[in-house]
Amino acid sequence: MFIERLTIIGVGLIGGSLARALKRAGACGEIVGCGRNTANLQHAIELGVIDRYDTNPAVAVKDADRVVVAVPLGAMADLFAAIRDALSPQAIITDVGSAKATVVADARQHLGQHLPRFVPGHPIAGTEKNGVAASFAELFENHRVILTPLPETDSTAHAKIKTMWKLTKAEVVDMSVEYHDEVLAATSHLPHLLAYSLVDTLAQMAERSELFQYAAGGFRDFTRIASSEPRMWHDITLANREAILKVLDRFNTNLAQLADAIRQEDSQEIENTFSRAKAARDKLTL
Amino acid sequence: MFIERLTIIGVGLIGGSLARALKRAGACGEIVGCGRNTANLQHAIELGVIDRYDTNPAVAVKDADRVVVAVPLGAMADLFAAIRDALSPQAIITDVGSAKATVVADARQHLGQHLPRFVPGHPIAGTEKNGVAASFAELFENHRVILTPLPETDSTAHAKIKTMWKLTKAEVVDMSVEYHDEVLAATSHLPHLLAYSLVDTLAQMAERSELFQYAAGGFRDFTRIASSEPRMWHDITLANREAILKVLDRFNTNLAQLADAIRQEDSQEIENTFSRAKAARDKLTL
Repeated sequence: MFIERLTIIGVGLIGGSLARALKRAGACGEIVGCGRNTANLQHAIELGVIDRYDTNPAVAVKDADRVVVAVPLGAMADLFAAIRDALSPQAIITDVGSAKATVVADARQHLGQHLPRFVPGHPIAGTEKNGVAASFAELFENHRVILTPLPETDSTAHAKIKTMWKLTKAEVVDMSVEYHDEVLAATSHLPHLLAYSLVDTLAQMAERSELFQYAAGGFRDFTRIASSEPRMWHDITLANREAILKVLDRFNTNLAQLADAIRQEDSQEIENTFSRAKAARDKLTL
Repeated sequence: MFIERLTIIGVGLIGGSLARALKRAGACGEIVGCGRNTANLQHAIELGVIDRYDTNPAVAVKDADRVVVAVPLGAMADLFAAIRDALSPQAIITDVGSAKATVVADARQHLGQHLPRFVPGHPIAGTEKNGVAASFAELFENHRVILTPLPETDSTAHAKIKTMWKLTKAEVVDMSVEYHDEVLAATSHLPHLLAYSLVDTLAQMAERSELFQYAAGGFRDFTRIASSEPRMWHDITLANREAILKVLDRFNTNLAQLADAIRQEDSQEIENTFSRAKAARDKLTL
């Protein structure tokens, strides 16, 4: 068996989908869930996502050869501290956090002698839904999983986490922690902030009107990510604060130039901006 | 027959879909297409969308009892001037422009004695695709069509355009020109500007990286509208300039507050903003 005992801490959309995908691949002996919400864990058992659970992380990781930490970024430090002394000396640990610098700092501070077997990871997959009920085995298929190994990361541990993700049919790539955080700030974190901020702006205007009634399909697509879980995105925003503020500055500059062009009725500049954007967007396969 | 001869000037996604829906409803005797691109008009005949065409608007509107103007906003004035002397005295005219103040100004200037039979309209439907090949009879089903009749609009003309859109299974509502332009600036025009500007920002960063490769589903949904036709959105942006700049100001204020909260690590403010937005977004049915 590729993994004898897998412990997944945080059995939500990502943790649950990973469990399903690895079960489908026949890669796991036993899957142990861990979380705070027993009703959710019980539901995960009923759905066949996990085999058993324990709400105490130190108990849940006992004798696990693979541990996946899928908790919110703000909960990583405490979680690492809680499992450190209970982890088996061979356990390989990974996480699925959407920002990597803070997770790596937390791991360095709290994982002690286990640090070389910690492989920071981030599957670029998800929907605006959350919870184990939304999980499905195909979530990672043809999606990227980014690993950001550290200088001290053990190469066997790295290879085994890579193989684990390949079993979900994901494409696995390595990247530096810093580059990961810049790329995700631009392609994921900033779009979420813009969607949240636009909907919040309109909600305030809409208090005295029926504004949203006239929103068409384009608006619905554009703002779908504003339905994402606020607490999770709060954690991501604070964790990747610096990279987000940097790309937000670039965006503000671009938007201010476009606003100037509109104010000055600069036809050419407006059409050039739209055309450049369309050309770049059309290259993304749908 | 509800309409004996319908002339559609601009046989693209909107004009083509309207023709298809009215044919399906058995509401039209003959549908005459008009446009500059004969290949497109020929294709529209092959698709069964129109019965015949003429590239000269003055010829195309001859003896039509209903005329739908579906040309870009920047082409409205010239088009109105071109058809004025050829319109039959009973012809009822409508348009499908995404901003209404400029169309109304163009109509007042160029439609002459036909103004009372001009009913400004805007179907809130569309996709990021365009052209008659993308048209389909169901486009308007369960979508809103906004009419913005003028003080001088003839009530029979108004009622007939309302009935025409109801035959496409759309829900028709009346609104003032000014309110329409404010609502659309907020729910459609600003989101398009933000999507174009974000993709343009990232495209400039991406020149030296493979940034877009790591874009996930949320980004694709968020930026889909940046694939919209640049010239059309150029026209809309300039036509609805003032309302757009007003709502852009509100958005910039909201985004700057959020950026301040991130800079100051104001946890509560960040989560409150995201939660308000999620609550508003979740109310929109999908």
